[in-house]
Amino acid sequence: MAQNKHVYRLTIACPDRVGIVGKVSNFIAMYGGNITEANHHLDSDAGWFFMRTEIEAASLPFDAAQFRTAFEPIAREFDMRWSIHDSHNKKRVVLLASHEAHCVHDLLYRWQAGELEGDIVGIVANHEKLREMAGWYGVPFFYIPVNKDNKAAAFAEYERQINALNVDVIVLARYMQIMPPALCEQYLGRMINIHHSFLPSFVGAKPYHQAFTRGVKLIGATCHYVTQDLDEGPIIEQDVIRVSHKHNIEDLQRLGKDVERNVLARGLRYHLEDRVMIHGNKTVVLLEG
Amino acid sequence: MAQNKHVYRLTIACPDRVGIVGKVSNFIAMYGGNITEANHHLDSDAGWFFMRTEIEAASLPFDAAQFRTAFEPIAREFDMRWSIHDSHNKKRVVLLASHEAHCVHDLLYRWQAGELEGDIVGIVANHEKLREMAGWYGVPFFYIPVNKDNKAAAFAEYERQINALNVDVIVLARYMQIMPPALCEQYLGRMINIHHSFLPSFVGAKPYHQAFTRGVKLIGATCHYVTQDLDEGPIIEQDVIRVSHKHNIEDLQRLGKDVERNVLARGLRYHLEDRVMIHGNKTVVLLEG
Amino acid sequence: MAQNKHVYRLTIACPDRVGIVGKVSNFIAMYGGNITEANHHLDSDAGWFFMRTEIEAASLPFDAAQFRTAFEPIAREFDMRWSIHDSHNKKRVVLLASHEAHCVHDLLYRWQAGELEGDIVGIVANHEKLREMAGWYGVPFFYIPVNKDNKAAAFAEYERQINALNVDVIVLARYMQIMPPALCEQYLGRMINIHHSFLPSFVGAKPYHQAFTRGVKLIGATCHYVTQDLDEGPIIEQDVIRVSHKHNIEDLQRLGKDVERNVLARGLRYHLEDRVMIHGNKTVVLLEG
Amino acid sequence: MAQNKHVYRLTIACPDRVGIVGKVSNFIAMYGGNITEANHHLDSDAGWFFMRTEIEAASLPFDAAQFRTAFEPIAREFDMRWSIHDSHNKKRVVLLASHEAHCVHDLLYRWQAGELEGDIVGIVANHEKLREMAGWYGVPFFYIPVNKDNKAAAFAEYERQINALNVDVIVLARYMQIMPPALCEQYLGRMINIHHSFLPSFVGAKPYHQAFTRGVKLIGATCHYVTQDLDEGPIIEQDVIRVSHKHNIEDLQRLGKDVERNVLARGLRYHLEDRVMIHGNKTVVLLEG
Repeated sequence: MAQNKHVYRLTIACPDRVGIVGKVSNFIAMYGGNITEANHHLDSDAGWFFMRTEIEAASLPFDAAQFRTAFEPIAREFDMRWSIHDSHNKKRVVLLASHEAHCVHDLLYRWQAGELEGDIVGIVANHEKLREMAGWYGVPFFYIPVNKDNKAAAFAEYERQINALNVDVIVLARYMQIMPPALCEQYLGRMINIHHSFLPSFVGAKPYHQAFTRGVKLIGATCHYVTQDLDEGPIIEQDVIRVSHKHNIEDLQRLGKDVERNVLARGLRYHLEDRVMIHGNKTVVLLEG
Repeated sequence: MAQNKHVYRLTIACPDRVGIVGKVSNFIAMYGGNITEANHHLDSDAGWFFMRTEIEAASLPFDAAQFRTAFEPIAREFDMRWSIHDSHNKKRVVLLASHEAHCVHDLLYRWQAGELEGDIVGIVANHEKLREMAGWYGVPFFYIPVNKDNKAAAFAEYERQINALNVDVIVLARYMQIMPPALCEQYLGRMINIHHSFLPSFVGAKPYHQAFTRGVKLIGATCHYVTQDLDEGPIIEQDVIRVSHKHNIEDLQRLGKDVERNVLARGLRYHLEDRVMIHGNKTVVLLEG
Repeated sequence: MAQNKHVYRLTIACPDRVGIVGKVSNFIAMYGGNITEANHHLDSDAGWFFMRTEIEAASLPFDAAQFRTAFEPIAREFDMRWSIHDSHNKKRVVLLASHEAHCVHDLLYRWQAGELEGDIVGIVANHEKLREMAGWYGVPFFYIPVNKDNKAAAFAEYERQINALNVDVIVLARYMQIMPPALCEQYLGRMINIHHSFLPSFVGAKPYHQAFTRGVKLIGATCHYVTQDLDEGPIIEQDVIRVSHKHNIEDLQRLGKDVERNVLARGLRYHLEDRVMIHGNKTVVLLEG
Repeated sequence: MAQNKHVYRLTIACPDRVGIVGKVSNFIAMYGGNITEANHHLDSDAGWFFMRTEIEAASLPFDAAQFRTAFEPIAREFDMRWSIHDSHNKKRVVLLASHEAHCVHDLLYRWQAGELEGDIVGIVANHEKLREMAGWYGVPFFYIPVNKDNKAAAFAEYERQINALNVDVIVLARYMQIMPPALCEQYLGRMINIHHSFLPSFVGAKPYHQAFTRGVKLIGATCHYVTQDLDEGPIIEQDVIRVSHKHNIEDLQRLGKDVERNVLARGLRYHLEDRVMIHGNKTVVLLEG
């Protein structure tokens, strides 16, 4: 499990130039850094280079802040967008939920089982239904109802509560409300949604009904970053499951739940382990496998 | 292999009512018919019933025409849309092709290998490129170029040639031209297309380019009946393959080819074996497995 | 959801003969029975016929016991192995567990969410670890430790407890102990195991270690009925997930968990809905989709 | 397509030590080499490091031989098993075949379509059946029958013919004969087989019959290097397809063919593009995607 080792994660995106890997590798080697995982991606068409390196923390003579200082000149030389992340600083995650339980439940279970790096610090929901489950997992639960008359006030309250929790990541775990633009902007690249279709098919409401009507032979789910354009943000992960004429809408919903929760769990895991780099409206996902 | 046994295939679609299966089963049993495959589908929501039965030809005392006569009263009683098909009357198939070889090649190979019931009686193409391949398989090749100036005349020629071949099924094997409405209408439910995306995503031109731009994590292919609405006809079969940021458009095209040819071959096989029943804009596909 | 409709499920396996379907269909039609789902399978090679029919309970003038009496002559005529099951008589399920939580947790969740027909009436475990989870779901928890010195006595206690719970189905939810032959015999066709490999690969202990050593590119899980031959019983359901050289044993275990829980949940659902018919050492699984 | 760019491919396997990537990267950068694809794999448990780098040939001031000389000191310093391969030196491939056509046909098609880097320089078969197909693709065909009385002589003739063709890779395209140990040894890591099961399940003869008898719910195919231990060599690629009780052995064979040919084509492509590194009895496959 990633969370059991203490590592620094260096992620870099920059225009491709001769010598990047050598420069970075030498920097790490110079300080005796022990690389535990390394991933590169060269986008030859775009002339852009991506890199993710995990370095054993104990092998380096400094902490993440000092790493930052020491590495800054190299980063500047190559025009890098970059970050260094200490795996001991777990990302703080808030789940936004409604009455659908399967995704929330699955994330809580995986978190408790140690499968997800990161801390689930709260659940904010517009229904009371999941309060008991949150309690059992020891996660604070905040009930903020939303209806068409109180939307502005309600979302101000969401925003206040999320900020009070000091979160790094917002997960819309089948939350089903359109987020206000300002919040999308504030958490750009840090707000993750699960949409219950294989995007870009069936954007918007009731995707299983749309899928049923169109008569598709596979249904899917999509985990993506939220932007102001509904269901149009960068895709992190997708998957599908086979269906047939024998399945009615309730069957699609039931079968789809398993895909949704797995896709969301994978997408969130990638994000928490700093494996996802956003480039334009697409993602580079540097997996261990 | 289906084509090695001589069977009649009875396909029925009708409003659901008590007693259908009993009536049909008794009819077959009364004449000593030996059922070799049986498939039902009840669409409870729509109140519609679908049935496909394979009966060993030698076990019945009459041919398909006589079956038709004898069964007609039952069909009328239950308002059936129905057909009886003799597996020895192989469907005549024409492939419409362009310069892309993979689907044409795959169908020719499967046909020669005995995997496809039906006879490929001709290839009509708007490029010369596949003439040699057609020749090797002993299939007549007709070259009818299409350009923006000769469209009406060219399609009249396609129509004439297709009708001259007396075909039961038209397969657009990556043909890439929009078919004229009259031809769509004439061969409704008998013209099959392979679209190189997971519909309804990426309708129309250059779907792999669209998929690349959107950054999807799976690409797919869709085999469907052609209607006058581009890429909107009833879906017979679909499949997908996983891709990532590492794949450029050429990679998507290469990987997609394998999906396209398998999906088209499956969809066509289902059609040739009378396994596909169109209902509204959807299909019921009654598989042996 | 199946559990929301009140139906009788008639399952039949018998030597294939002309007239079976007609006879059964007429029987149901004669009493005005409304068929809500129908599935046939003809095994032509073995000359054996399988049939599963769901009939709306309210459409019939009698209960399951009376159905049994009325149908018995037909069953005898065709040498049927058969059963009629009232969906309101939910099967009583006991989970046998150890310290692995993922399968137990998943089944409890699905049960509570109404996805599983059947009642989980107890968890019997050889570790204390899952007691709290059982409590939260309101399921009685029985701790019966097993070690090499107390095996006979411990299993006598398991047997006593299971019988006291009056169960219809035993689920080995990653229980990891070899069951005594007498218990296997008593619950033949009613004891379900999840094995964490794609059987018949990697029978026995530590299948992920075996898979890692062999360097396979896919790992899987198998849900099967338990017989006295370890991991050799009839397979109900299997699935796989792609892995690579990048995954170590811990990764295989983590990725495999998702496959295990989904495969077990599917297999158990099929059993609870009377969709699985055992024939020799194989299963016929008559799915709705 | 890989074969359209002129690149050198540097592949390295060595014990993991601080500084490898830096040293190699600096070497390439020093000569102005333009990296077009880069892949690393660190096996932390085994302490072993794998690396594959594609460098644009025109960006380097020397050819592959000179690269070899210049790089040798670094290779020695880090105890590397390594190679440098010029993509213009296409590997020479011989197909060994029997009467099954689907894999041979698929490879010939892909080769002609430019999907496979490498040259198919001959087909050696123990049946005459594929001679015509070979002829159509312009590939020399050698018929060497094998029976239980002439085995030693026949295999001596195979060996002579293969060596005369001066091949780099032997592909057993459903050849179905056990290769003599000496030939296995001579072409160790360069002889590729497709086995028609998901190994290690169903080693040896008639795997579809074995799969049918066991009642598995998925069937598969495995592409692996041949060693003297039958079906036990390092696995390059595997895949599966879902089956059910409805499929008889002929169905399994038909469905399996599609998996076999795709798995073999992928495995061979990886090998031809120097993406497969053998380590012990396992492979590291460094994919572009």
